[in-house]
Amino acid sequence: MAHAFKNCSNLMVTGASRGLGLQIVESLVTGGFSPGKIIATARNPDGAKELQMLAEEHQNIHIIKLDVTCQESIERAASEVEQLVQEAGLNCLINNAGINVVANLETVTADKMLENFHTNSVAPLMITKAMLPLLKRAAAKGTGMGIHRAAVINMTSLLGSVELYWGDRADTFKWYPYRTSKSALNMVTRCLAVDLEADGILCMALHPGWVRTDMGGPEAPLSPEESISCVLSVIGGLTEKDHGSFLHYTGEQLPW
Amino acid sequence: MAHAFKNCSNLMVTGASRGLGLQIVESLVTGGFSPGKIIATARNPDGAKELQMLAEEHQNIHIIKLDVTCQESIERAASEVEQLVQEAGLNCLINNAGINVVANLETVTADKMLENFHTNSVAPLMITKAMLPLLKRAAAKGTGMGIHRAAVINMTSLLGSVELYWGDRADTFKWYPYRTSKSALNMVTRCLAVDLEADGILCMALHPGWVRTDMGGPEAPLSPEESISCVLSVIGGLTEKDHGSFLHYTGEQLPW
Repeated sequence: MAHAFKNCSNLMVTGASRGLGLQIVESLVTGGFSPGKIIATARNPDGAKELQMLAEEHQNIHIIKLDVTCQESIERAASEVEQLVQEAGLNCLINNAGINVVANLETVTADKMLENFHTNSVAPLMITKAMLPLLKRAAAKGTGMGIHRAAVINMTSLLGSVELYWGDRADTFKWYPYRTSKSALNMVTRCLAVDLEADGILCMALHPGWVRTDMGGPEAPLSPEESISCVLSVIGGLTEKDHGSFLHYTGEQLPW
Repeated sequence: MAHAFKNCSNLMVTGASRGLGLQIVESLVTGGFSPGKIIATARNPDGAKELQMLAEEHQNIHIIKLDVTCQESIERAASEVEQLVQEAGLNCLINNAGINVVANLETVTADKMLENFHTNSVAPLMITKAMLPLLKRAAAKGTGMGIHRAAVINMTSLLGSVELYWGDRADTFKWYPYRTSKSALNMVTRCLAVDLEADGILCMALHPGWVRTDMGGPEAPLSPEESISCVLSVIGGLTEKDHGSFLHYTGEQLPW
């Protein structure tokens, strides 16, 4: 489904300096069917050496500075994105930036909960809100639902599934701030799906798998390439039936 | 099942100055099978006139000052509760205090999201953590699961169900901060259920219905008495099979 991205004029991905965000940019530009413009955001673009090197090789990569927890930064980024996409609007927003403030019952504090919630749950909402005029602009030009028109992809986690955190799955990753932030992001996704349906903007939550990134650690079963190959296949194939859904990187539906 | 409370020596309920919290206290003391001690918390006890009047009539009501978003206040309350319950410990903690920071997609801000999350999701976690030694003390004396031993009840909402927020149910209550905070509370409940199972402490999430309180408004179908009659029946009847669950005030299971 990666060829679906040839119908996606403008795509934005947050947290693109490393990990899955960087891999999304790399896989898109080396996949042969790259979007017209890839807007890659990083909190500190100067430190994002690999992203910078990619951007030097591929003119359709545009790096923008964005601190996802800062409203001023979000609004500044929205202006810059508008300059880049102009009348075409934004076809695909991938809210990928995220953190894991590791804490179990013993070590969890209110501040750790709030920090993880702000970055993982609130920031995707505030960024989507800021990009909404551009998403609507793109959506107004198309029919159906998908990245050929306009879509918001929230990178969530299976660890945010309340249903699945039980029985055999309850032995590991006892991370209160992270799990809670991803459950909250799932509700944010659903709220956005309800509200943006009338505009034809597809919204969904996607679990990229457990991946060998800085966050996932060396024990994870998937390489970033493997994960993002599947992730892009799912994103490229999204249609109306996936609106408001929570999907595994293999395309299977997950329980909330 | 209200008679089940005769086997509950010490019960604590937060947010007891009005609404459902006040009704819980009132229904318990007038129900004929009251717990040994009812510890009712309020942010501002001096302003809680109705609760004070109840406490003057019923000596087993103990009012404690608690600002649920303040860690110092939580720790001070935990010391006071320990003085009250002593070696018997705490059999039932009802995390009832909650707010609704009303905001839709247009009006939502990061601050509104964080404020609602702090009170509705983080506070129940931090309060449970602070009361844990007392809950464990009570649990150590019993077998099975339920309020005769030790239980944590998180008052959540059907509006926190991601699954149910779709189709016919998607037309109203487009409240981002409230819905998100209740989804997050559901995950907090599940995390606590996983971690406290070994201690024999039952944890579950309970939807009290849509009630004519200050928060629910005059349009709500249920009176506080009707809601709390059902709520206490559910709480009184909790057993092992309800551990980690999300229940409607009628006792039915709800999807996450």
